[in-house]
Amino acid sequence: MNGAESLVRTLVASGVEVCFANPGTSEMHFVAALDRVEGMRCVLGLFEGVVTGAADGWARMMDRPACTLLHLGPGLGNALANLHNATKAMTPVVNIVGDHATYHRQYDAPLTSDVEAVARPFSHWVHTSPDAKLVAAAGARAVAAAMTPPGAVATLILPADTAWNESDGPAPAPEIPPRARVSAEAVRGAAKALRSGEPALLLLGGMGMRERAGALAGRIAAGTGAKIMAQGSISRLERGAGRVPIGRVPYPVDLALPALAGVKHLILVGSKVPVAFFAYPGKPSVLTPPGCQVHVLGTAAEDLDHALEWLADEVGALHAAPVTPYLRTEPGTGPITPEGLGRSLAALLPEDAIVVDEGLTTGRGFFPATVASKPHTWLANTGGSIGIGLPLSLGAAIACPDRKVLTLQADGSAMYTLQSLWTMAREGLDVTVVLLSNRAYAILHNELMNVGANPGRKALDMLDIGRPDLDWVSLAKGMGVPGARVTEMAGFNRHLAAGLNTPGPYLIEVML
Amino acid sequence: MNGAESLVRTLVASGVEVCFANPGTSEMHFVAALDRVEGMRCVLGLFEGVVTGAADGWARMMDRPACTLLHLGPGLGNALANLHNATKAMTPVVNIVGDHATYHRQYDAPLTSDVEAVARPFSHWVHTSPDAKLVAAAGARAVAAAMTPPGAVATLILPADTAWNESDGPAPAPEIPPRARVSAEAVRGAAKALRSGEPALLLLGGMGMRERAGALAGRIAAGTGAKIMAQGSISRLERGAGRVPIGRVPYPVDLALPALAGVKHLILVGSKVPVAFFAYPGKPSVLTPPGCQVHVLGTAAEDLDHALEWLADEVGALHAAPVTPYLRTEPGTGPITPEGLGRSLAALLPEDAIVVDEGLTTGRGFFPATVASKPHTWLANTGGSIGIGLPLSLGAAIACPDRKVLTLQADGSAMYTLQSLWTMAREGLDVTVVLLSNRAYAILHNELMNVGANPGRKALDMLDIGRPDLDWVSLAKGMGVPGARVTEMAGFNRHLAAGLNTPGPYLIEVML
Repeated sequence: MNGAESLVRTLVASGVEVCFANPGTSEMHFVAALDRVEGMRCVLGLFEGVVTGAADGWARMMDRPACTLLHLGPGLGNALANLHNATKAMTPVVNIVGDHATYHRQYDAPLTSDVEAVARPFSHWVHTSPDAKLVAAAGARAVAAAMTPPGAVATLILPADTAWNESDGPAPAPEIPPRARVSAEAVRGAAKALRSGEPALLLLGGMGMRERAGALAGRIAAGTGAKIMAQGSISRLERGAGRVPIGRVPYPVDLALPALAGVKHLILVGSKVPVAFFAYPGKPSVLTPPGCQVHVLGTAAEDLDHALEWLADEVGALHAAPVTPYLRTEPGTGPITPEGLGRSLAALLPEDAIVVDEGLTTGRGFFPATVASKPHTWLANTGGSIGIGLPLSLGAAIACPDRKVLTLQADGSAMYTLQSLWTMAREGLDVTVVLLSNRAYAILHNELMNVGANPGRKALDMLDIGRPDLDWVSLAKGMGVPGARVTEMAGFNRHLAAGLNTPGPYLIEVML
Repeated sequence: MNGAESLVRTLVASGVEVCFANPGTSEMHFVAALDRVEGMRCVLGLFEGVVTGAADGWARMMDRPACTLLHLGPGLGNALANLHNATKAMTPVVNIVGDHATYHRQYDAPLTSDVEAVARPFSHWVHTSPDAKLVAAAGARAVAAAMTPPGAVATLILPADTAWNESDGPAPAPEIPPRARVSAEAVRGAAKALRSGEPALLLLGGMGMRERAGALAGRIAAGTGAKIMAQGSISRLERGAGRVPIGRVPYPVDLALPALAGVKHLILVGSKVPVAFFAYPGKPSVLTPPGCQVHVLGTAAEDLDHALEWLADEVGALHAAPVTPYLRTEPGTGPITPEGLGRSLAALLPEDAIVVDEGLTTGRGFFPATVASKPHTWLANTGGSIGIGLPLSLGAAIACPDRKVLTLQADGSAMYTLQSLWTMAREGLDVTVVLLSNRAYAILHNELMNVGANPGRKALDMLDIGRPDLDWVSLAKGMGVPGARVTEMAGFNRHLAAGLNTPGPYLIEVML
């Protein structure tokens, strides 16, 4: 058994059951090994950002890592933007990168680069296997590094000869350390703040945004008068009818400041102190009001369900919080507007759907609009690197074949990883993409004003992605995904229902 | 004048006249400054690999840098693959990357990363401007670093507040050191090898592949019986009728070894000792035969025209070498074959065309087929990171608006940077793309065999990019580029002539 096969067998034994791949020559033995090992599905992406974004989406739904397969330093380069998002989401990813054979690197062949240096800025753990006999153990360590709470990107670099030389067979699956329990001091500190009678906010992040944590946070809020909010960057939030309603910290500084105004005690539950996405002249970086005290109930790496349960006991919050009742709404009518789209989404969202949100400017209202829709999961961009929406959808659809995936996707962002559509078609994934076509980097129009820049024609040209207009129905068709363009709400409603009700991918280009 | 404007004015004064940009919030002041400064054209790309590949293409034709404009660490990540190729081509690039305001970085906002660390593996020079008053001087140093022979990628990181704060105005254009002259010892060493009577090869790279160097190398070869060859990685080669014919080191090891067999003296002229692109079990890494002596006439950073002239004098090679006569050929007929395509390209290539070659498996025969075509420039992938063809064409077309650009583009590679088509449409660039659709990572089929891997169905699926078939005419239409699909040579000939004879971009999908 060669090194590649020993690695694949180790990964399968460790619970890694999908490989998202864009391989090259140096990865051919790994690819060939996939045929000899049961239990590893291999999914091809035609661009590396598709691969890493899909691995992120898969793991957000499964809470364990998929692996990637990438081709040397430049292939890893293409993968970094979505690894950045995975890092900020604290998603476990086993990121496997082929490299030249160990003895070949000295010759500086054209594809040579320092792969470890490329990986390091976006990986918590980086290791180059020196030998085929050590690669299986390195694979187990990579899984452990990825899975150690809160979850991280672990990059394993695989020189070609460590894949093709003879190994000693697979390594045992690693032991994963459990989430640590929070200290009594942390719970007492939060409890004291909640009992102070001063305005308090439970800010949820990471596993604090899942259903049980949300219910517990709701119970505490109901018992103490505190508010609950999710952090701005949502890796995975369980929401909708039957769940405690949870808002989020708004993206624009001018909305975030009033949302957080008056908070005297900020209690972090797997989250961080909220800061502005960007700096703007004359605006603060930190969004909490002056004098606000910060209390850490638990970090993202800790057992937040346990912490919240303990805190609920500590403050005597015994009663379940009221949950959102299902609110039947009517789909939007007339011309297309963000509000109309929000109403239609709220009305038509199927039970247990996975909503992937990279709607940016147009999509900002869709989150509040769907608070009382049927229960669903919300996945969003966590690191601010645009181009995660389509790959995330792809990964989530592979993880959850029995659930509908609804992707709210801005056009400018979609262009970074549009190759995702091809993989959706190949794998027959049940993803309905609502492509919001405003033909602009609209968010930058606001940002130009926010930073006080005074744009002229050349500058505005850089924000305008019309001229020529992108035709998303043609782009989707070119990659095997059927689609339709809609110009009024009735068409949107019809095509959204059709997309959701038929299996396989479907793209609706919404002309804004 | 703010820091951004002081930087733009410095760049323009230093000969940087095009900015290839994919900006975000932190770059808005730079974008706004472009409106206030004459002399900088700004070209938008919808993906960062388009931006850096275009900057490479522009500078290969102009021998001075364009600048880029990229958005923080993840935007730079997307740009790295083509920066890798630029690095291997030794192309001068001023790579400008926005970052968070200096005071904002401490808060670890979602888009925060170590931008310097991301840049370093693919940049010869990296600097973060600490202050608006220093950014103009940093820009001049970046130009100097990019332009210092042989040419390099220089990355200047621009925190948002160094762009928006008040500056002291522009800095003077930098002094660029001239190319060093080679030593008498180097020339005498090469001359002695050439006079030895033993088989010698002049291996050309960098500026050694330009017209004058080629003519001088030809004269030396004619006078001494030496052979001439270009290195495998061709950044820019001047060739065709009226020029000395120059072959290149073949990509496959099994063809490169016989091509170099028998060489006793390898004389490097801006090139490196040829090595295998990848390591393969049982095959050598170094391609020169055992016992071959290596002589460095000049490095890529040195004045190679001068070195070759000196060497020609030294060996008494006084007579110009015979040049290739123009050979009229008939276009291919019948079903589409690589040979037929080669004949049609040879027949229809217009004078002074720029050929961009990322044809890979199918395209390998096009280089020999066009040796006696009308004189033209050949640009190719230098670093092995696929996805350079379309962006390189874009940059070359902007650099040379009066020349026709003909792009020979494999389908798998095209998918990495297909967003280039949109910029070609927006800018109305005169590029004819011959999209070679074999619906496979065909090169990997060979490589699977070369590395001795034994593929099964899952493995072969990873090399097959059909299922679903990509429809390139739809993809091009979706980005505003007209195109046609051809299934026999007559159609190819008609559409190639039409594409070349009409201004603006055109895509021909060739079904192989």
